[in-house]
Amino acid sequence: MPAPSPGYAITVRVEAPASATATAQLSAAVSTAGGALTALDVVESRHDHVVIDVTCDAVDVAHADTITKALGDLDGFKVRKVSDRTFLIHLGGKLEVTPRVQLKNRDDLSRAYTPGVARVCMAIAENPDDARRLTIKRNTVAVVTDGSAVLGLGNIGPAAALPVMEGKAALFKRFANVDAWPVCLDTQDTDEIVRTVQLLAPVYGGVNLEDISAPRCFEVERRLREMLDIPVFHDDQHGTAIVVLAALTNALRVVSKRLEDIKIVISGVGAAGHAIIRLLLAEGARDIIACDRKGAVHRDQSGRDEFRTWIADNTNEARFDGTLKAALSGADVFIGVSGANILNGDDIATMASEAVVFALANPDPEVDPLAARLHATVVATGRSDFPNQINNVLAFPGVFRGLLDAGAHEINDQMLIAAASAIANAVKPEELNPSYIIPSVFDAAVAPAVAAAVRSAAGK
Amino acid sequence: MPAPSPGYAITVRVEAPASATATAQLSAAVSTAGGALTALDVVESRHDHVVIDVTCDAVDVAHADTITKALGDLDGFKVRKVSDRTFLIHLGGKLEVTPRVQLKNRDDLSRAYTPGVARVCMAIAENPDDARRLTIKRNTVAVVTDGSAVLGLGNIGPAAALPVMEGKAALFKRFANVDAWPVCLDTQDTDEIVRTVQLLAPVYGGVNLEDISAPRCFEVERRLREMLDIPVFHDDQHGTAIVVLAALTNALRVVSKRLEDIKIVISGVGAAGHAIIRLLLAEGARDIIACDRKGAVHRDQSGRDEFRTWIADNTNEARFDGTLKAALSGADVFIGVSGANILNGDDIATMASEAVVFALANPDPEVDPLAARLHATVVATGRSDFPNQINNVLAFPGVFRGLLDAGAHEINDQMLIAAASAIANAVKPEELNPSYIIPSVFDAAVAPAVAAAVRSAAGK
Repeated sequence: MPAPSPGYAITVRVEAPASATATAQLSAAVSTAGGALTALDVVESRHDHVVIDVTCDAVDVAHADTITKALGDLDGFKVRKVSDRTFLIHLGGKLEVTPRVQLKNRDDLSRAYTPGVARVCMAIAENPDDARRLTIKRNTVAVVTDGSAVLGLGNIGPAAALPVMEGKAALFKRFANVDAWPVCLDTQDTDEIVRTVQLLAPVYGGVNLEDISAPRCFEVERRLREMLDIPVFHDDQHGTAIVVLAALTNALRVVSKRLEDIKIVISGVGAAGHAIIRLLLAEGARDIIACDRKGAVHRDQSGRDEFRTWIADNTNEARFDGTLKAALSGADVFIGVSGANILNGDDIATMASEAVVFALANPDPEVDPLAARLHATVVATGRSDFPNQINNVLAFPGVFRGLLDAGAHEINDQMLIAAASAIANAVKPEELNPSYIIPSVFDAAVAPAVAAAVRSAAGK
Repeated sequence: MPAPSPGYAITVRVEAPASATATAQLSAAVSTAGGALTALDVVESRHDHVVIDVTCDAVDVAHADTITKALGDLDGFKVRKVSDRTFLIHLGGKLEVTPRVQLKNRDDLSRAYTPGVARVCMAIAENPDDARRLTIKRNTVAVVTDGSAVLGLGNIGPAAALPVMEGKAALFKRFANVDAWPVCLDTQDTDEIVRTVQLLAPVYGGVNLEDISAPRCFEVERRLREMLDIPVFHDDQHGTAIVVLAALTNALRVVSKRLEDIKIVISGVGAAGHAIIRLLLAEGARDIIACDRKGAVHRDQSGRDEFRTWIADNTNEARFDGTLKAALSGADVFIGVSGANILNGDDIATMASEAVVFALANPDPEVDPLAARLHATVVATGRSDFPNQINNVLAFPGVFRGLLDAGAHEINDQMLIAAASAIANAVKPEELNPSYIIPSVFDAAVAPAVAAAVRSAAGK
């Protein structure tokens, strides 16, 4: 059973007998039911009873119910209500729009609004570049989705995707003081998505595409990059690719191998896989085999879309034709951005010595990381409860901070590589080891370092 | 010459001789040049000189230059630099997007973002109405413009319109804790505007259209109202109409006349005029003559668009055919939402006794309010430097507060009338007089009263 997570934290309000053992009984009941107790707060005390808020993490919704039932089943105890802490913090949404200017009196109003604002409008009308100085365009990014590929949830649509985009915007602000705004579009038509983002662009200094399914995401990105004069970034592609390159850079330092010399096998040719391949090639990788569900992608296949064709033309020079498992034999590096449990420890054992395994499928990796670790030197996942978490939060806030500070009109591979290098170098040589190839998402030095690297790569 | 305004405030940094009369000389120079001094701050003092920041209001940009030159021309004085306070407060934009949730540690992240957020997404996917509870849709309004009719500046486009929309959003938050976000669209095609707002709608609990030119604004509003399940409000129409009705309600109390009995002449049949006519009719007005540049609109005219046809069909029952000035004869109320200085005191003198004049053209009213006041009992304008300022800030924040609190799916005339009534009643009977028919925009009681009235009219 997976470990209890704060994402499934509940607070159960229990009326209990006023006995010396009440809290011990509650604590034991949570523990026996498999919950992780985080707090016991007495909220009311009387001669004959006490009321206690029991807060604990559960594994999932059903498990939360099991824990609640266990507490109510204690002799003389009664559950008054159950609060779900995740839902509680979502009430009313996770963002607000706050003025950066005072509006206390008439003079404030005259400057921030009419009549004073008219002069600012005219300055921008005369010199459009002033919008980056005198408006929120200076610091604001659109987080754009159509809700077609949200987390591991699939095509849940724009309204249901909004909590994720709000969370993303909160992370932008928290880690890099970037103002990000959710744009959840009620269409999955490529032309409409492109046109809508183009029409919205005057307000924004950058566009972060998010959770748009492949292959539409490639076309949306390419067309927007062609038409807009602000940088367009697709986090599922480029954010992932940056952090993978950063982690791989450090993993190769650990095993003393060079990117140019190694054999890399990638499982998954969606948004993330595609971008990882591009960035690794740009950084000098020479031997990559990409696999989809049917096995290795190679040049002799027919009926490929243009994106698979690009992969076939730029990887697998030997035209290896076989399964993922077969491809893995002798590989130095495995990178999984596909699905859960498609490999086991024996498969990893076929890799070269001092193998590197990045099993990034969420929530369940391509291979059990503990099993993989028996045969590979470095193992990383997307999860926070194993060492070496590959998390895009390390990249996107700093990347956009750097782009906005540079007033960049576009984003290119040099900037992505600079960002990856900054993340890799945030792990000091004396810290580097097989279980610490990537900094913590809460390392406050990462985003500023990434921003500086991107800004510098932009020539500013 | 108009009065100096804080909208044209400058701070001039002057190096002056270290004499006892330096500040007096600066003060006198500002005054002689017609500026309104607001502050003198010594920022540096040496044996032989002092540096003083002179802050003053000017009439316009040219006047600010005149004042600056006057200070530099003082014998022994030197201007070091000039700061424009209006531009200073606009640097970097006027809004920011801030998280309402803590993101201090891993547990916070697990609840606000992955993996916890997935459950919130699924809850909304299963029950779309939950978006109004669990996302920013609960409290967020889109401020939508195409930049085609911005303030008195005309068609300056979406980028140059952004400072106004930011200001509007700041007012929404300041007066009613509504989160409002600027949507400045890079198109003036009606179909595209409508479709884009429809595609954006999942994130918002309401739409506030702003500064879209007539007659396109009518069609945009009508179509959006038909297709969206959130209220659509056009501030230039309905906000203005609400505040005009509120002011007229109190003006009629002052002169002891009834809406049903009076003759009303309206100059201007654009967005504001159209909405004012609709709302006055809904509230019981019977005798309205609307005039455009050519004179009274009436049923015997040909070649009218559908909006003028509606006005002709619903006003001017007597089919009066003549100029605005001729129409004004014997009228009880004049409402101007057109252009500057089209009437004079003599025209107002032809109105009925105890006349009411609302001259709302900005920045210069249809008639000089001082001249009008010689012949009318109540005079109101859109300006802050005369009594009785008709300002939409009294309406839109409270209206949307009420709509959002009610979870309203639409807005109707009953809600607009309720809002107007709440604004009118914010002036207590003992406060009411010809120079105080409308509360101050800084009256903190107005927005909550409007919100309660709208919510109640929405049946919540």
